[in-house]
Amino acid sequence: MTVATHPLNDPPCRVTDPASDPDAGVDPAWLGSAAWRELGRRRVRVFGAGLLVETVRGEVATAVREHGGSLLPPDTSEPADLELRCDEEWFDPAGSFEISRTAGRTLVRSADGAGLLYGLHHVLRQGEAPLTGDDRPARRQAPEQTIRMLDHWDNIDVHEVMGQVERGYAGDSIFYDNGRVRDDLTRVQAYARLLGSVGINHVCINNVNVHRTEATLITDLLPDVARIAAAFRPHGIRIHLAVSFAAPVTLGGLATADPVDPAVGHWWATVAAEVYEAIPDFGGFVVKADSEGQPGPFGYGRTHAEGANMLARALAPFGGTLHWRAFVYNHHQDWRDRSTDRARAAHDHFVPLDGEFDDNVILQVKSGPMDFQVREPVSPLIAAMPRTRLAVELQVTQEYTGQQRHACYLAPQWSQILRFPLWGDGGATVADVAAGRAAAGSGGLAAVSNVGDDPFWTGHPLAQANLFAFGRLAWDSRLDPIALLDEWIGLTFDGADAPAPDGRGTVRQVVHRILDGSWQTYEDYTAPLGIGFMVTPGSHYGPSVDGYEYSPWGTYHFADRDGIGVDRTVATGSGYAGQYPQPWLDVYEDVRSCPDELLLFFHHVGYGHVLHSGSTVLQHIYDTHFAGQAQARAMAEDWAELRGRVPDEFFERVSQRLAEQVRSATEWRDQLTTYFLRKAGVPDAQGRPIYP
Amino acid sequence: MTVATHPLNDPPCRVTDPASDPDAGVDPAWLGSAAWRELGRRRVRVFGAGLLVETVRGEVATAVREHGGSLLPPDTSEPADLELRCDEEWFDPAGSFEISRTAGRTLVRSADGAGLLYGLHHVLRQGEAPLTGDDRPARRQAPEQTIRMLDHWDNIDVHEVMGQVERGYAGDSIFYDNGRVRDDLTRVQAYARLLGSVGINHVCINNVNVHRTEATLITDLLPDVARIAAAFRPHGIRIHLAVSFAAPVTLGGLATADPVDPAVGHWWATVAAEVYEAIPDFGGFVVKADSEGQPGPFGYGRTHAEGANMLARALAPFGGTLHWRAFVYNHHQDWRDRSTDRARAAHDHFVPLDGEFDDNVILQVKSGPMDFQVREPVSPLIAAMPRTRLAVELQVTQEYTGQQRHACYLAPQWSQILRFPLWGDGGATVADVAAGRAAAGSGGLAAVSNVGDDPFWTGHPLAQANLFAFGRLAWDSRLDPIALLDEWIGLTFDGADAPAPDGRGTVRQVVHRILDGSWQTYEDYTAPLGIGFMVTPGSHYGPSVDGYEYSPWGTYHFADRDGIGVDRTVATGSGYAGQYPQPWLDVYEDVRSCPDELLLFFHHVGYGHVLHSGSTVLQHIYDTHFAGQAQARAMAEDWAELRGRVPDEFFERVSQRLAEQVRSATEWRDQLTTYFLRKAGVPDAQGRPIYP
Repeated sequence: MTVATHPLNDPPCRVTDPASDPDAGVDPAWLGSAAWRELGRRRVRVFGAGLLVETVRGEVATAVREHGGSLLPPDTSEPADLELRCDEEWFDPAGSFEISRTAGRTLVRSADGAGLLYGLHHVLRQGEAPLTGDDRPARRQAPEQTIRMLDHWDNIDVHEVMGQVERGYAGDSIFYDNGRVRDDLTRVQAYARLLGSVGINHVCINNVNVHRTEATLITDLLPDVARIAAAFRPHGIRIHLAVSFAAPVTLGGLATADPVDPAVGHWWATVAAEVYEAIPDFGGFVVKADSEGQPGPFGYGRTHAEGANMLARALAPFGGTLHWRAFVYNHHQDWRDRSTDRARAAHDHFVPLDGEFDDNVILQVKSGPMDFQVREPVSPLIAAMPRTRLAVELQVTQEYTGQQRHACYLAPQWSQILRFPLWGDGGATVADVAAGRAAAGSGGLAAVSNVGDDPFWTGHPLAQANLFAFGRLAWDSRLDPIALLDEWIGLTFDGADAPAPDGRGTVRQVVHRILDGSWQTYEDYTAPLGIGFMVTPGSHYGPSVDGYEYSPWGTYHFADRDGIGVDRTVATGSGYAGQYPQPWLDVYEDVRSCPDELLLFFHHVGYGHVLHSGSTVLQHIYDTHFAGQAQARAMAEDWAELRGRVPDEFFERVSQRLAEQVRSATEWRDQLTTYFLRKAGVPDAQGRPIYP
Repeated sequence: MTVATHPLNDPPCRVTDPASDPDAGVDPAWLGSAAWRELGRRRVRVFGAGLLVETVRGEVATAVREHGGSLLPPDTSEPADLELRCDEEWFDPAGSFEISRTAGRTLVRSADGAGLLYGLHHVLRQGEAPLTGDDRPARRQAPEQTIRMLDHWDNIDVHEVMGQVERGYAGDSIFYDNGRVRDDLTRVQAYARLLGSVGINHVCINNVNVHRTEATLITDLLPDVARIAAAFRPHGIRIHLAVSFAAPVTLGGLATADPVDPAVGHWWATVAAEVYEAIPDFGGFVVKADSEGQPGPFGYGRTHAEGANMLARALAPFGGTLHWRAFVYNHHQDWRDRSTDRARAAHDHFVPLDGEFDDNVILQVKSGPMDFQVREPVSPLIAAMPRTRLAVELQVTQEYTGQQRHACYLAPQWSQILRFPLWGDGGATVADVAAGRAAAGSGGLAAVSNVGDDPFWTGHPLAQANLFAFGRLAWDSRLDPIALLDEWIGLTFDGADAPAPDGRGTVRQVVHRILDGSWQTYEDYTAPLGIGFMVTPGSHYGPSVDGYEYSPWGTYHFADRDGIGVDRTVATGSGYAGQYPQPWLDVYEDVRSCPDELLLFFHHVGYGHVLHSGSTVLQHIYDTHFAGQAQARAMAEDWAELRGRVPDEFFERVSQRLAEQVRSATEWRDQLTTYFLRKAGVPDAQGRPIYP
């Protein structure tokens, strides 16, 4: 594919000609031409063969053609500035590579074709540094997670409520268009290239809520699936399909989908064989069962282990994996019944099944116990399944974090989750469990993609940073999220470090000012202190403090005139805190040790309760909401400095989104402060305007 | 058409054979075979000619064929039990008739064909009484309102949010099916027959929110409209179309829809001429302008009088009428701005225009200032336009009154509205203004229909009573709503007075127990004391106390920990009370004289405020919600007595709806009581269960 060019103002200012460029109008994201400038002006030699090596060779060829370097044939003696070698026997582990520098030549050696691709992009991300200077000893890079996966909640048929992409905020699906798989997969190829560059190696291409048409991806639509797989394959990515547990009935014409019925197992085995016949490197199935209306083994009186293992056995002969989501809870909960607690559900359901899942089953666990709120504790289930392979699921699509209308850089949240020491400081982390270092095997990370057919891929151009950072953290959870943002800025903005004409900040500095703390800012003006939700039911956008308060979905805050919060203690509440191992059980159980940011998740307290910060709960709500809104305004003002310094369309799109963020943050601030003033009756200590 | 028969258990129990009946599966509503039994066994003679006289003759012919009577030729001497005469010169007023009885013969004389039809149904509704007994002097019946209209909010294209029928709760449209006018208009004919039987004489067949396809009803789809008009014509009903003010641009290709532009007026005149060419008795246009996103004259800096008059002049040469809706308000209101009050909007907009509208303009005013809530004050606009023809708009479709999932007989509400003395006791009423007795001319009544292609017409079979009663009250607002219900019961339920096997109530008694107070019951368990809304945004079904509290739609309750209500007084509030003439200004302005049921509409009071009833506001909320839910349960229990005594399908449908009503009423009770307990902190004096 042709690499579209950002018309950035670092000279020479190049503008893509829409008429001559088949990708015109599609943003190159972090792989624009300028990103390749340093590498592209070098002499590069690529050793090796195979599909991914050819991908590497193609990238290099394009880059040197554009920037004046050269791609040297392997059998010539001309000295190279960079050698990329995948021609040796070196097996450990897949995707890894080693980089060294000797006598003016930088060498990347890789374990396999994927490793070579990752090594290439490692060099690319560093800019000039790896290609200059003194000798450097070999340094190996290997992925922390073997499975680095993105899940698409894309529908084939436009869903009457959810549209083409469920919880999608970036246009329609790049895979599907109104009932059909797209004929033109150019955007899928470009997407695969972006994902491969940050190490993503698995993609599930359809929504876990599997409707009628989507169910046929494993049967009638298999030729289309094979075309999509072919688009991902050159970038080292295997595809997966979400399947309906009821498929033996709805597609197979069987009377049952009971997992212990031999005919059901046989049907799935036959289907799996056909899928692998068409796609030999197919990744496997993803299943959301007995959740939010999806069918599952409960309907037949079977356990989730029985259901998952039956499907896993169909995949096992072909090396396939079964991702089984642990997002199972009662969404017909009675808000009157304080004994039910949605937060408990995954742990309650799955812990008794630990050890019962087959080796090729991965239990996919949302990172928190609820549903991707701006702040949740880490799911206790992650610490409670030592004999099960666990994947940790994150959400790149900003369902509850501003829906790509708000700038909200999520890597700091993910970093905090992945580094969370499940058994206390110094012990194994969430990333360790996912990597199999503290569990029966590796499950990896999975995340819901934020990409659609929007020209900027992600609706909000700055949300590209989230997609980038997810891949990078799946590679290595110890990477600093702000440093990752810095990588992304350097690749994305040509002239990121060019001094501003009037002496103000560089593009790099301004984007850091906007994004570094944007997750905290979003939390500041939305639901406080870990309580979550307070969003408009259904859309999940914008404030509605009581939106889920009397809802069957099981997400409550219990605010009354005296206080707020959910008592999840063992002593007096739902007992959820007891699902944690020590030290967290004690930390969360005791209102005195519970961290401020999770206080209302674990405790019901009075508005006058004094936080560790020294503020009362009520004054904290006032203060954070005024501060968060002010920060949103500051973000918009910061961005305005970049007019003329980033491409116009990019600038305008971000400007529009930031204006909406300010509007929305103001609405959040005013509704939240008004709501709590009306309830608590205590005015803001600083006398700021609240609307009683 | 064949009259379908209710298989009621009053002997002989007749069951319709679905195979032989083209209307099988469609409920005959109040015109089932049994309703015709008394008339059908008589000797009847019909005098006169013309389309409506033929309709009368056809009804009689069918009835006597089924029940053993006879239709006597006009020129025979055989004595008749009933004579229906439309052969004399008697002109005053249209639709009127006179009934007398002499020497065993009942005589109906009518002013015109419509009068004969209404006279026939008058006889039918009385059962045996008018056909037996001693001589009775002539008694004249004339309609109070000359225009008795139903508006359909039916879309041709299925709207992505609103569906085929906006605010429809009875299946899809009887006129349209997924983008087209139906070929088979059998249901429309049956509907026209039902409407004609209760005196409806105008129907607007499309939604006032006019979308792209619907806009073409006045142009491309005119042949289809003519077919619909032909289906209504034999029942004395003229049809109207809702049009888009922007049609000159969107359909006509003009650059503007500015009402003072001669080209615009010319375009409308041409269109109107074409409409009347196709449908000579076409009623006119209905317009929702500058409201909830619809285009209007404001877009061109013109007044609503200028906009309406321009359209009216296009219709005037053909005797057409322009209905211009007064439902104009700011739906982008800022909830922070207490100076804006949606209730004020219609009065603020239209009073300055009084006297400026042409003679064939009817300003269509919603009965209350908000939007068909279970309880609102009468709109002050109705008293404030003495030089304008006003139509009063009611809502038969139960948008805010249970959506035909709840039994809610609305005639008591409408009766209260229509009889409301706008200038105090003994003075002119709302009905008087609509009838032109206290205004520049008659505008009549209009109401949004509750009918769809549901087999029971109205989703909830008992909601048929609302359709029936609207027609009857448009005929005469002084009719007692409970007596009207009694008429409906007698026509609808064969064997309504048959004694119950076990000595319990008759069908008539049970249905009265369920419906007589059902409006009050609905109010009891929903929004209290006139405050309105508290419904789920968008759907308007089910409780959401704060659903519209921070909304741009402008419907607030301002509940805080101390009190609730909207201060609409002149002294300290929005000044809305000042839109009323005396005595109501003083009555509403003063919290001491304001009626309890409207207290929170006009005043913000503490929860401890003592009502005229002696209860506090808070205890009233508790009491009415417990009582309302208990009454909903009693309704369901009452209905259960009728198993086997009404047709099974009718019984089952009502039973299902009542079960939902109980569930929903329980949810309303629990959410409302919990919400206010949490806010006010004062428990129920009777200690009933509330969920803090």
